[in-house]
Amino acid sequence: MGKTHWRIGVAGLGTVGAGLIKLVTARPRFSPTGDLCTVTGVSARSRSAPRPVDISGLPWFDDPVALAASPDNDIFVELIGGAEGPAKAAVEAALRLGKPVVTANKALIAAHGRDLAILAEAHGAPLLFEAAVMGGTPAVKMLREAMVGDSIHAVAGILNGTCNYILTQMEATGRGFAEVLGEAQAMGYAEADPTTDVGGYDAGHKISILAALAFGGAPTLSAAEIEGVDSIELLDIRLAKDLGYRIKLIASATNVAGAVSVRVHPALIPLDHPLARVDGVLNALFIHGAAVGRIFIQGAGAGAGPTAAAVAADIADVMTAAVRPVFQRAALDLEPIAPVSPDAATGRVYVRLLVKDEPGVIASISETLAEAGVSIDSFLQKSVEGAGGVPIVLTTHLAPEATIAKAVGAMAALPTLIASPRVIRIAHI
Amino acid sequence: MGKTHWRIGVAGLGTVGAGLIKLVTARPRFSPTGDLCTVTGVSARSRSAPRPVDISGLPWFDDPVALAASPDNDIFVELIGGAEGPAKAAVEAALRLGKPVVTANKALIAAHGRDLAILAEAHGAPLLFEAAVMGGTPAVKMLREAMVGDSIHAVAGILNGTCNYILTQMEATGRGFAEVLGEAQAMGYAEADPTTDVGGYDAGHKISILAALAFGGAPTLSAAEIEGVDSIELLDIRLAKDLGYRIKLIASATNVAGAVSVRVHPALIPLDHPLARVDGVLNALFIHGAAVGRIFIQGAGAGAGPTAAAVAADIADVMTAAVRPVFQRAALDLEPIAPVSPDAATGRVYVRLLVKDEPGVIASISETLAEAGVSIDSFLQKSVEGAGGVPIVLTTHLAPEATIAKAVGAMAALPTLIASPRVIRIAHI
Repeated sequence: MGKTHWRIGVAGLGTVGAGLIKLVTARPRFSPTGDLCTVTGVSARSRSAPRPVDISGLPWFDDPVALAASPDNDIFVELIGGAEGPAKAAVEAALRLGKPVVTANKALIAAHGRDLAILAEAHGAPLLFEAAVMGGTPAVKMLREAMVGDSIHAVAGILNGTCNYILTQMEATGRGFAEVLGEAQAMGYAEADPTTDVGGYDAGHKISILAALAFGGAPTLSAAEIEGVDSIELLDIRLAKDLGYRIKLIASATNVAGAVSVRVHPALIPLDHPLARVDGVLNALFIHGAAVGRIFIQGAGAGAGPTAAAVAADIADVMTAAVRPVFQRAALDLEPIAPVSPDAATGRVYVRLLVKDEPGVIASISETLAEAGVSIDSFLQKSVEGAGGVPIVLTTHLAPEATIAKAVGAMAALPTLIASPRVIRIAHI
Repeated sequence: MGKTHWRIGVAGLGTVGAGLIKLVTARPRFSPTGDLCTVTGVSARSRSAPRPVDISGLPWFDDPVALAASPDNDIFVELIGGAEGPAKAAVEAALRLGKPVVTANKALIAAHGRDLAILAEAHGAPLLFEAAVMGGTPAVKMLREAMVGDSIHAVAGILNGTCNYILTQMEATGRGFAEVLGEAQAMGYAEADPTTDVGGYDAGHKISILAALAFGGAPTLSAAEIEGVDSIELLDIRLAKDLGYRIKLIASATNVAGAVSVRVHPALIPLDHPLARVDGVLNALFIHGAAVGRIFIQGAGAGAGPTAAAVAADIADVMTAAVRPVFQRAALDLEPIAPVSPDAATGRVYVRLLVKDEPGVIASISETLAEAGVSIDSFLQKSVEGAGGVPIVLTTHLAPEATIAKAVGAMAALPTLIASPRVIRIAHI
């Protein structure tokens, strides 16, 4: 059995780091193995920053790399964040010494997952990152361990609580994106620089990690198509609802004829779909396997408590001395996720047009679509005060995305159009 | 790293056993460790029964105990079923030899979990049972591994697909219990002897296992209060819907002041609650943790594909050589789940009464409840043709269950009552 006392070094003392120290202090024997866990070193940018836990009794390291390399801890916990810089250097230092690493850093794993896995496996050190995706909801463990007997068709869900909160609030309060974002920032649900969240990059990191686990490849950020929620207008939320949909930021990884389509984009979800009912800062994920069918999981995607609990679960896993690859095969055999050729993708879309109020407009739109080979599923013309024209929204049937793009281009060229068409995908989950 | 080829012996060749052999034959290297898995022995009641897989090339054992003890396999997979008899004898034989055991047998683990865990740990053999609960949806792994950093308040959900199918069909088709049960039997969703399912015992086995994992005790069937769906009438399904509820068979384990209430019973679920929307043979579970909040998982609860995939995931886990206790602490330290004192339980109920059509009836009912100290939340009187009286349904506010029982007893004694009151709990999940 070996070791029965595990000393952890914690780099990064934000909400999650403080939550972890609180958890380990309150329940040092949280692990079912019965082993003891104590914090024997901490590091952060500022030693004196106000924190909800007292760190005065814990050995302090100015340099997280020195903490990672210190013989005074057996597991290095990286909660600094960021794909480069001190987080990466410290994780590498620990792995090079064969020291187990537990991290919540989605950017790091998404950008350097394969290289770090190679380092981890070369030195026989576990590298675990449950807290990187969906906080306390164990999406990583489910895909890494519970689904290995199955063949995954797709994973898709809501992975960014900030975006979901903003979209939920826009619909609930009838206020615009900028106003709701400001409120989310004031409440601590969004960062001062919100780009990572609202631009879809955070969800992109997460779905890249899940795609790697689901499809047996290396996380491949460059394969992900990423679009955020910053362009979503209240008008689209309202019109989508009139058509029976809710707009959500959906992250998905789908097996399309042997390649994998990894995407983050706003999408229309039918109102009676479970993902349409995921409100506020919740996260949710569908896992669609050939054998198991559809599994749905939903829970808190962030926050001190849930994320610290996920880190603790990883620490308990290290204690079991399980030997498995970091991803789904030996890291040296991991291939990047191959992006799907744009020609292979099919889909349905919602298109909003703003047209001049004159006869023949609807005919010209439907003719344009028919010529391009795209058929219309529903059509809605609705007067909206102050819109400066007549808004028309339509949804299409399934068609190759290239065909849809061509059709939208042709509509954009119509002389009756006042503004560029607004296109949002309709999810098929 | 040790072993790279794992030979499995499979006892029990029903749907799940056949599904597993198909899976392992198609993908012998399904494990992320890259290890090889092959079937080197099978056993079942009948060698010649028609099966969807060809077993003619596999070494046959008449006696599952001999298969379990055979040096020609490294992992024993028990898919026979039943708490006693050959399943138990074979699992014990394997564990006594230090051989890892993977089983889908909920009755066995619920009845003998602690003794088997003691045997497993004494001989250093893993004992895994993911497939025993919720088929391919990894409830066991989530509670055993992913939630260990948290403190669980409650787990509650729909764990029996047969009952859920029957209740869903009764509502959808307006047919009675017996008729829908017959159809479910014809479709293979219910056994010829349906008692285990419709009596709530199958869900009782499963929630006893989840309770042990959630609360760190031994599975304790005797602590479970079990009531099935066989007494549910179509009238109750309809009246509940009028009040905004759907009736589901709910299995729950709840921490009540340090003791654990383990229960299976029909319950009214608000129509907008996720559990009310779990239709057909699906299973679903809420895990409520102090730190993570509410996690919801939903998926197939049975079937060859999902269950075989869960067995395969356990086999892959064995290959990692993880050393952890079978339940949440060393088996010798496991205490039975302590049942909650009936006095500590509080709840809300739905009561259906059939009364004579005469003045003063409603007054006498409400006075009886008021005297007992139970207050009414909603009240519905509805004429139903052929009911032989006037049906009245009411829902109560929260009250001690003992108080509610007293009130129901007092109502039952009212001279205006034509039949005994029908009481169904209202879930609080």
